Formats: sequence, structure tokens, C-alpha cells
Amino acid sequence: MEQPSPIDFYFDPISPYGYLASTQIESLAARYGRRVEWRPVLLSVTVLQVMGLKPVPATPLKGDYSRRDKNRLARLLGVPMCEPRHPDVSPIRALRAFLWLKQRDAAQAAAFARSLCARLWARGENISATEDVLDEAARLGLDVEAMRAGMESPEIKTLLREEVDRAVAAGVFGVPFFIVDGEPFWGVDRLWMLEHWLKYQSWDPKP
Amino acid sequence: MEQPSPIDFYFDPISPYGYLASTQIESLAARYGRRVEWRPVLLSVTVLQVMGLKPVPATPLKGDYSRRDKNRLARLLGVPMCEPRHPDVSPIRALRAFLWLKQRDAAQAAAFARSLCARLWARGENISATEDVLDEAARLGLDVEAMRAGMESPEIKTLLREEVDRAVAAGVFGVPFFIVDGEPFWGVDRLWMLEHWLKYQSWDPKP
Repeated sequence: MEQPSPIDFYFDPISPYGYLASTQIESLAARYGRRVEWRPVLLSVTVLQVMGLKPVPATPLKGDYSRRDKNRLARLLGVPMCEPRHPDVSPIRALRAFLWLKQRDAAQAAAFARSLCARLWARGENISATEDVLDEAARLGLDVEAMRAGMESPEIKTLLREEVDRAVAAGVFGVPFFIVDGEPFWGVDRLWMLEHWLKYQSWDPKP
Repeated sequence: MEQPSPIDFYFDPISPYGYLASTQIESLAARYGRRVEWRPVLLSVTVLQVMGLKPVPATPLKGDYSRRDKNRLARLLGVPMCEPRHPDVSPIRALRAFLWLKQRDAAQAAAFARSLCARLWARGENISATEDVLDEAARLGLDVEAMRAGMESPEIKTLLREEVDRAVAAGVFGVPFFIVDGEPFWGVDRLWMLEHWLKYQSWDPKP
């Protein structure tokens, strides 16, 4: 029997909304027999370079809204959420390490991705430096020295750039972003609509 | 007995998402015993001037997403939706006429607001010119000549500017935007969350 196509789940750990989605997507997918394909994207590329906008936290009105909104959404979803404690968090090393691990074990990489998001938004620890990333890997019992070498390799640096280019080519502009069966969804507030699609594969109200 | 506070519903007829919300908000509010206070806002002020962004239709990737997304949301909500047929639609005269009518009859003004949104997005007719606005008023059996005089008065022009300033001061940046009991909600995709608030007045999952 043919496998149903996976849900492409695009994340950047710097996004609190991406973290919230990272806590929900696997159980949602499993309820409808779908696999989740975790894919990296960089908001610094999509928002700043491609769309020519400014970061949400630095956007008047919208920044204040999202700072407040993330907390009530977390409460509603029953997951922890903390305030940003580190200025200018960089996701680059974390996403390189994620891609390196994904080449070896996709399930471990997904768990590592969830853990990196939670490190920043549930525990308030940084993810920017190599040592931050490896500390998180150690918590999960991963091979830290192999990851250290792998995440710095030229191949992985190139792969992250290519993956972000592919995300942009697929129309991904925000985080979280989901694509399944060619249907794109932006935002953790669209999980209800993603679920409708997974249930009915139609946009009729109740087909 | 004290009346529960109304839902402030901010709309700009140029937004397809605002139109979609305009078809839903009254029945949602009525289910929870709330009144809807229809309030004008101008995306040309909030998005361009206050946030310093560009219009969504002109934003790479996000523009394409919203053009597609509006159609599947309309289908899901069971309401008509058409493609934009008029470049550079201006909501200014429509919103002045709405405010003039609201001073006389808030319920009529809400019906007129819904009708203006549907004129643009369900029937594909323009709302920019005075004659467009008055044509819609005539469809509803309103006093067209009184509206013509009223919507051009200096007082109404000033009132629209003041209303938009008040919206910005309240944190309104997008359309549709809802505020109830001090809780702000942006987007037609947040109706589920607005409903949660109306039902429980809490962010606990099931209080």
C-alpha cells in the first residue's frame, strides 16, 4: 500500500511560534497516519532578505502582540514558555547540527529539533554557540564529538544554504510552516486547518 | 444585570480576510451573548506608516500565499470569494460613510459594513468612489442623499482619522482584529481562539 505523503514541517528555533508547533505536530500527524519531515528554514533569510520586512519582535504593535500572544497560546496548549533572555540568538549552528544528525537518523534529528526549540523557549537557555548546541546534544545522549566535527564541515554549511533555498522555492516565508499534499499552512494558529485537511483532504466544510 | 462588554471588531474592506471575518463575527458573538462593535481601521496607516512594512499582496511569497489561502478559507466557511478586479481600491469614502451611518444607527452601519466587504470580495464591484459607496447604500434602502452630504463633511473626515488613531493606540495592526475583555486577536484564523475566550474567559485548555 502506498504511504501517505509526509507533512513538511519548517522550523527555525528562534521563533516562539515554531517552538509551540514543535510540541504539537508529531501527535497531530500520528493521529492521521502521517509522518513529519522536519526541515530547517532561516527567518533571517525569508523575512529580512526575501520579503524585505523587519523581524517581528522589532515591528511596532506586532512585536508587542506576539510577546503577549505566545504566553496565552502556550498556556492553552499546556506547554511551558519563557521570555527571551538572550539578545541576537543565532540558529545557524543548531540547524547545521540538526542537518548533520538528520543525515544519520531522522527520528533522532526530530527529537533534537524539539529539544533545541524547548531549550530556548521552555528553559531559557541559549542555542547560539557551538557549546550550547553540543550541550543540548549531550542531554539527549548523542555523540557530541562526532556532531562537533560534522556540524562544522563545508558540506553541512552548504546543505543548510541549499535547504533554505529549497524552502523559499517552496513558498515558505514564516515559521512554523507546514506543507502537505501541496497545501501550505503558515502559523501555529492554523493547526485546526491543517487538521481539517488531514481529516478530509478537502476544503468543503464537512465533505 | 451588567451587560458583558462588546467585541471590538476592526475592519478595512480592502482586506479579504476582513471580509471573511465579517461573515462570521455576528453569529459567533451572538452564541455567547456578546454585542459586536464595528470599528474602522486603515491598513494603509497601520501596515505602511506605523509598522513600516509593505502591503501583503505586494510582499514576496506572502502575497501568493494569501491569494490562494483566501479561496480555501472562503470555501471552508461556505461564503463566496472572488479575485481582486480593481487596482488600488480605496476604503476611505466607504469608511466615512460607515461612520456617518454609525452615528445614526449602529445596527444599520454594521449591515452596511458587511455589505461593503461583500461588494468587493463576494461580487467583485468597486467601493472606491463616492458613487460606488452610494450604490451599495441604495441596495440596502438607505437614504443616499443624506449619506452623500454626511460622508463629505469635515466632521466625518476628522472622525475617521481619530478612529484610526484610536485603533493604533489600542494596538490594532492587522485586519481582521478583535479585542474583547482586553484580549487582542489578529486574523480570521484566530476565530477558534476568540471562541475559546468567549466560552471560558480563561487560557486554561478546559477550565
